Amino acid sequence: MSTTIEISSERSHAGKSKALVLGSPREGGWKKGIAIMDFILRLGAIASALGATATMAAADQSLPFFTQFFKFEAAYDDFPTFQFFVIAMAFVGGYLVLSLPFSIVTIIRPHAVGPRLALIILDTVFLTLAAAGAAASAAMVYLAHNGSEDANWLAICGQFTDFCQATSGAVVASFVAVVFLILLVIISALALHKK
Amino acid sequence: MSTTIEISSERSHAGKSKALVLGSPREGGWKKGIAIMDFILRLGAIASALGATATMAAADQSLPFFTQFFKFEAAYDDFPTFQFFVIAMAFVGGYLVLSLPFSIVTIIRPHAVGPRLALIILDTVFLTLAAAGAAASAAMVYLAHNGSEDANWLAICGQFTDFCQATSGAVVASFVAVVFLILLVIISALALHKK
Repeated sequence: MSTTIEISSERSHAGKSKALVLGSPREGGWKKGIAIMDFILRLGAIASALGATATMAAADQSLPFFTQFFKFEAAYDDFPTFQFFVIAMAFVGGYLVLSLPFSIVTIIRPHAVGPRLALIILDTVFLTLAAAGAAASAAMVYLAHNGSEDANWLAICGQFTDFCQATSGAVVASFVAVVFLILLVIISALALHKK
Repeated sequence: MSTTIEISSERSHAGKSKALVLGSPREGGWKKGIAIMDFILRLGAIASALGATATMAAADQSLPFFTQFFKFEAAYDDFPTFQFFVIAMAFVGGYLVLSLPFSIVTIIRPHAVGPRLALIILDTVFLTLAAAGAAASAAMVYLAHNGSEDANWLAICGQFTDFCQATSGAVVASFVAVVFLILLVIISALALHKK
């Protein structure tokens, strides 16, 4: 709490003129807390996005025995949807890493609006990308597990058990990243609101 | 412009004290323009979300001749992913219709922050739902068109041409709705920023 007061005293002129209008003397501390939570959520999102990318990219299984399938190896790059997943989640993870400095700027200067606005807009775009990758791969994982009787597509998870486990894990991790990104957009909106 | 001035004169006290701090006398008109654009974008999103729902729900084709498939009819409810699509896009369309009154409130009172904050948070959640439905169905439509050699899944669009056209159209409409929702979140963030 003492740190908060020190920093807001550096900006005493801007802080006081705003406090007069909005009548909230503890506003600086409140916004600083939001900014620190933003940073922590961003770390969580990075871990899950990069974890999802690595798990999916490493998903590869060769079968030691003959089956009804022509090919005896399954890897993520046999399925365009899983390729899209790897590319999308790698982009999301890369963006989140690059966004960390901007998040730190909002911790140091809780009243700076520019970085926060840039973060909420880019977070929204990459949230959409992450949700698209996660959902498309979830549809594929569902098909791999259950097949589709009407389209005459057989479930392949009976043979490729390890491959299916790896891809399912990656999809779960990507949905965790999506939840982190939704929370990031919401707290950025709250921070913009209480200006 | 005259309407704008009339309305901001109703709130002259709050408007003036803010104008003193931020130094922007034409702020009320700027925010009103944003609110009207929000309303128009919302109408576009409603049209594309409900269009996508209806197109997908109506996708149904019976084949008049014998094929290699056991079932000779394809409808959206044969595929769990397309069922999810219909439910998700119907929810998104319903939410957008219900959000119209809140959008009108932000046109009448451009400085009201509560409705705008509620809109940006709910828009983000439903954006994620729409993106998930659109991407999952896009993965299925891709499979229906191209199949997957490695998983031994055959393309069904050679037989079910009308069904494939309808589902592809629905997926395109849902991506249009996703773009509208992204724009809605971005302009809401801009409106919260210039407060």
